Amino acid sequence: MTPARLETFADGVFAIAATLLIIDVGIPAELNNSLGQELLDIWPQYFGYGISFLTIGIMWVNHHAVLRQVERVDRPFLFLNIGLLLCIAFVPFPTRILAEFVRTDDGAAAAVLYGVTMTTTAVFFFSVWIYASHRGRLLHPGVDPKEVSGITRSYLPGAPTYAAATLVGLVSPEASAALFGLIATFYMLSSSFFGRSNAE
Amino acid sequence: MTPARLETFADGVFAIAATLLIIDVGIPAELNNSLGQELLDIWPQYFGYGISFLTIGIMWVNHHAVLRQVERVDRPFLFLNIGLLLCIAFVPFPTRILAEFVRTDDGAAAAVLYGVTMTTTAVFFFSVWIYASHRGRLLHPGVDPKEVSGITRSYLPGAPTYAAATLVGLVSPEASAALFGLIATFYMLSSSFFGRSNAE
Amino acid sequence: MTPARLETFADGVFAIAATLLIIDVGIPAELNNSLGQELLDIWPQYFGYGISFLTIGIMWVNHHAVLRQVERVDRPFLFLNIGLLLCIAFVPFPTRILAEFVRTDDGAAAAVLYGVTMTTTAVFFFSVWIYASHRGRLLHPGVDPKEVSGITRSYLPGAPTYAAATLVGLVSPEASAALFGLIATFYMLSSSFFGRSNAE
Amino acid sequence: MTPARLETFADGVFAIAATLLIIDVGIPAELNNSLGQELLDIWPQYFGYGISFLTIGIMWVNHHAVLRQVERVDRPFLFLNIGLLLCIAFVPFPTRILAEFVRTDDGAAAAVLYGVTMTTTAVFFFSVWIYASHRGRLLHPGVDPKEVSGITRSYLPGAPTYAAATLVGLVSPEASAALFGLIATFYMLSSSFFGRSNAE
Repeated sequence: MTPARLETFADGVFAIAATLLIIDVGIPAELNNSLGQELLDIWPQYFGYGISFLTIGIMWVNHHAVLRQVERVDRPFLFLNIGLLLCIAFVPFPTRILAEFVRTDDGAAAAVLYGVTMTTTAVFFFSVWIYASHRGRLLHPGVDPKEVSGITRSYLPGAPTYAAATLVGLVSPEASAALFGLIATFYMLSSSFFGRSNAE
Repeated sequence: MTPARLETFADGVFAIAATLLIIDVGIPAELNNSLGQELLDIWPQYFGYGISFLTIGIMWVNHHAVLRQVERVDRPFLFLNIGLLLCIAFVPFPTRILAEFVRTDDGAAAAVLYGVTMTTTAVFFFSVWIYASHRGRLLHPGVDPKEVSGITRSYLPGAPTYAAATLVGLVSPEASAALFGLIATFYMLSSSFFGRSNAE
Repeated sequence: MTPARLETFADGVFAIAATLLIIDVGIPAELNNSLGQELLDIWPQYFGYGISFLTIGIMWVNHHAVLRQVERVDRPFLFLNIGLLLCIAFVPFPTRILAEFVRTDDGAAAAVLYGVTMTTTAVFFFSVWIYASHRGRLLHPGVDPKEVSGITRSYLPGAPTYAAATLVGLVSPEASAALFGLIATFYMLSSSFFGRSNAE
Repeated sequence: MTPARLETFADGVFAIAATLLIIDVGIPAELNNSLGQELLDIWPQYFGYGISFLTIGIMWVNHHAVLRQVERVDRPFLFLNIGLLLCIAFVPFPTRILAEFVRTDDGAAAAVLYGVTMTTTAVFFFSVWIYASHRGRLLHPGVDPKEVSGITRSYLPGAPTYAAATLVGLVSPEASAALFGLIATFYMLSSSFFGRSNAE
């Protein structure tokens, strides 16, 4: 199997998982207020839709950056990628739970579910990269060691950051949700301003 | 990242968002009339399905026209595109709301939700193009300046037109829905009769 | 736009529409019998899933056969294809209705809805081909006129056949449903035994 | 039709079927316990999601291994593949039923439904391979006969293994579900440790 084929399959899962998020956005079957009021009241759903869509989008961008360095694919790498995609495809479920419960007494459980999903995803993502890059196992022969260690350094904070935001959820689910949004926003802005050359 | 890779991902989101629209078409759980009558009574759902499918289809055609001019992709361009796709993937929700409420007292809120979504989508679409074409930032070196300014002119009316149709929704939701359908139909017919060479 | 790009987008819609069919397969929320009995009782849903999946699969095969003859794409051709895909993506809805109502007093309306969808799809399919092939408008210059008229002849019976099966539905919904299944089966078998060279 | 085109369509169905599995993961509409407890109580849903996602992922890897050997595609091969994809796209339904009923008195019916689906899928998969490889019908001319018979041997146990796990479900649904999980895990581990060269 070539990296290109894996890329096509992964792109499909990224695109479908992100687009499926909209299925879970909806108003209650019985309206208690005017439609306009109900549409405003479900803002946590828009927020959840937005941060999960952006996070999946960022993962897609980074997954491509990984595969660009990879020359060949072996079975363990393939199954690590399937594990990563299993996590990505799982994201709509915690998103739905977070949007529904973040402002209730059950908010902590919802924030932890969301955070554990994101942390696990980040761990799989990092494992995919480490497996491929360890002693240059699957990388292009001519790849620049400085670039490789630069990528490793840039992916390293992902899992701990999500784990920290998850722990915050035990105390304040809303602060935790805000952190998940900030992580995605900060990443997009910083890589837009400082990382242009990487994307080219 | 190459424009081709972005194109594949974007195509996925366009195709999935359009195909997901059918999930929201359905008859009530409890039939009050014969099935035939119920199937006729839900015509606003067919209408909503049709205009949203066509609008997403048109956006897909135009998105390709943009990427055909683009030689390279940087991070801000990538994230602007993810913002555009976030809007496209959102379309099934306002479509469902519009179909359900356009003929009720809450029609205005439904039409405004639909219109704001389309206007925002058009703004993102225009931003994607302006970011890529400003001083030829990401375009092919040999691109014709007259063609570039022609494309700019053709995309310019999108957002104001949708904004105007949204305002109509405050007065008459049904007129607003008809306008959304007319915009898509008019665009398809005019570009079929006058714009053939562009698509080739 | 190249035929390859249209093909990618169309493939996406075909694959998604076929795969979404499974969402509508399910048992009642309240079981009246053992699970085993309920799973047997919903056989019309398996039947509907099967014939719609196969029909979409056949349309996909034929759509490729059309695009293989096409050298270039213009706007009217693009929008005819979007019309065809709008019909394909609509198929899950009549499938769900047919499976639910074929054995009830409302069976005729369900069969007619399914049949009208299939007939319209066949009409769009034929229009796509006629538009492309009329005076060789979009075809490869060196295409064999005998092959072109052979394709035209092979697609010609599609819409009338579906229209006839739709009319049968007014009298007997179950006979109509059986016919929809027979059309797909017959097509697959005949093209497998007599049309091998076409697919290569 | 080229194997590449079939591969794209098949990849789409594999990716969509796997990603759709998450739609069926959910908590009850009425909570009887805290959210945290409910999220733990639905572990059979996570389990079902996991094994079905991995099984579809493995089938995707193997389907690629088949198509890599194939030089050309004819109609019967195409329709055998559509039959295989029909089974793959069906997987979300038995997954949902298994997760809901495995711990109830109806567990046997649920395990049998899941097992029959997997057995049928394995039969179609084997048929696809046998049809393509019988007397080298569709294979690349220079393909190594030893590799061909090696692939045949490696796919041979699939259907009987799933059939045996299905029969176990008649006695113990939970043991059967555990077996479905073990089959996928064992396959991934064994092909990762012993089959690395095959994936390259």
